Amino acid sequence: MLSPAVENLVSQLSRLPGVGTRTAHRLAFHLLQRPKDEKERVRFCNECGNLTEDEVCAICRDARRDHTMICVVEQPVDLISVERTSEFRGLYHVLGGALSPLDGVEPEHLRIDELIGRVERNGVQEVVLATNPNMTGEATAAYLADRLRGRVRVTRLASGLPVGGDLEYADEVTLGRALVGRRDME
Amino acid sequence: MLSPAVENLVSQLSRLPGVGTRTAHRLAFHLLQRPKDEKERVRFCNECGNLTEDEVCAICRDARRDHTMICVVEQPVDLISVERTSEFRGLYHVLGGALSPLDGVEPEHLRIDELIGRVERNGVQEVVLATNPNMTGEATAAYLADRLRGRVRVTRLASGLPVGGDLEYADEVTLGRALVGRRDME
Repeated sequence: MLSPAVENLVSQLSRLPGVGTRTAHRLAFHLLQRPKDEKERVRFCNECGNLTEDEVCAICRDARRDHTMICVVEQPVDLISVERTSEFRGLYHVLGGALSPLDGVEPEHLRIDELIGRVERNGVQEVVLATNPNMTGEATAAYLADRLRGRVRVTRLASGLPVGGDLEYADEVTLGRALVGRRDME
Repeated sequence: MLSPAVENLVSQLSRLPGVGTRTAHRLAFHLLQRPKDEKERVRFCNECGNLTEDEVCAICRDARRDHTMICVVEQPVDLISVERTSEFRGLYHVLGGALSPLDGVEPEHLRIDELIGRVERNGVQEVVLATNPNMTGEATAAYLADRLRGRVRVTRLASGLPVGGDLEYADEVTLGRALVGRRDME
């Protein structure tokens, strides 16, 4: 019924979490009705790899942000999560994924050399590794820490109990990390 | 149909999470069929407030454990959670709840003076506050830190991202704490 290109778009969209075939069709038709230039305007920031419409994104251009800190995330959506906390005022670096040799994702497939380049060029003092606290994210953080060691201070997001949680329902590994990573009060 | 005492037991049991009336009846009959001395044997440890059958519980009596550290929890069930992590080899102190003035739970209703007494008597060097990371648990930790300040090192469980989690689904407050509490890698 549909052209192969449209069928392909529908099939790609239906892989999104929570999107079935019917929603995928609706999304596809909506996207196809947008003006062509709007679709072509979005690109990746030359510096950090975030989505932008310019050569360099608004965050990288913002002189009021702390250009000595870089927060490394896997995807643009993670950058939005960190921004929402209002706890980070530095710059970002979007890797474009996490290392996963079994899925064929090797270091050269991520924007790792670009990160090293930024750290060496721009007087960066701290790199905050904010990859996901799951297996591929932890492996990526360990790899990046190795590559960056001796060049810059490297930190990692804290593991521990989520705010509002309950010891009784915490898994053992998380509670164990919360204990090991305990902090002095005042 | 049932005696008021049994009805009372059923009504208490049906307040347990996930226990309806039918299950409450089944539990009540099971409990009532246990030998009387078994029911009367369980008591609170004189030292830590954990459930035990002796004056002092097995953990408090264990000379191989580190008697210079006390982990403070709200309930015996939280002690079990911490034990399961295998990351803590000190002693415990069970408060019996968390401060909640609106519910009428004031400091004198918890085993707080007993905790201060243990810290002063027994050469304790660190108190790990492992109350729940929710509102009443945090208030209790803040109150205890105030009371213990200057007497002993006071630490608190780390807040942060649960292991295996995903930045995209972390709430802002938890991710914010994970950022603020970030740790140096090696």
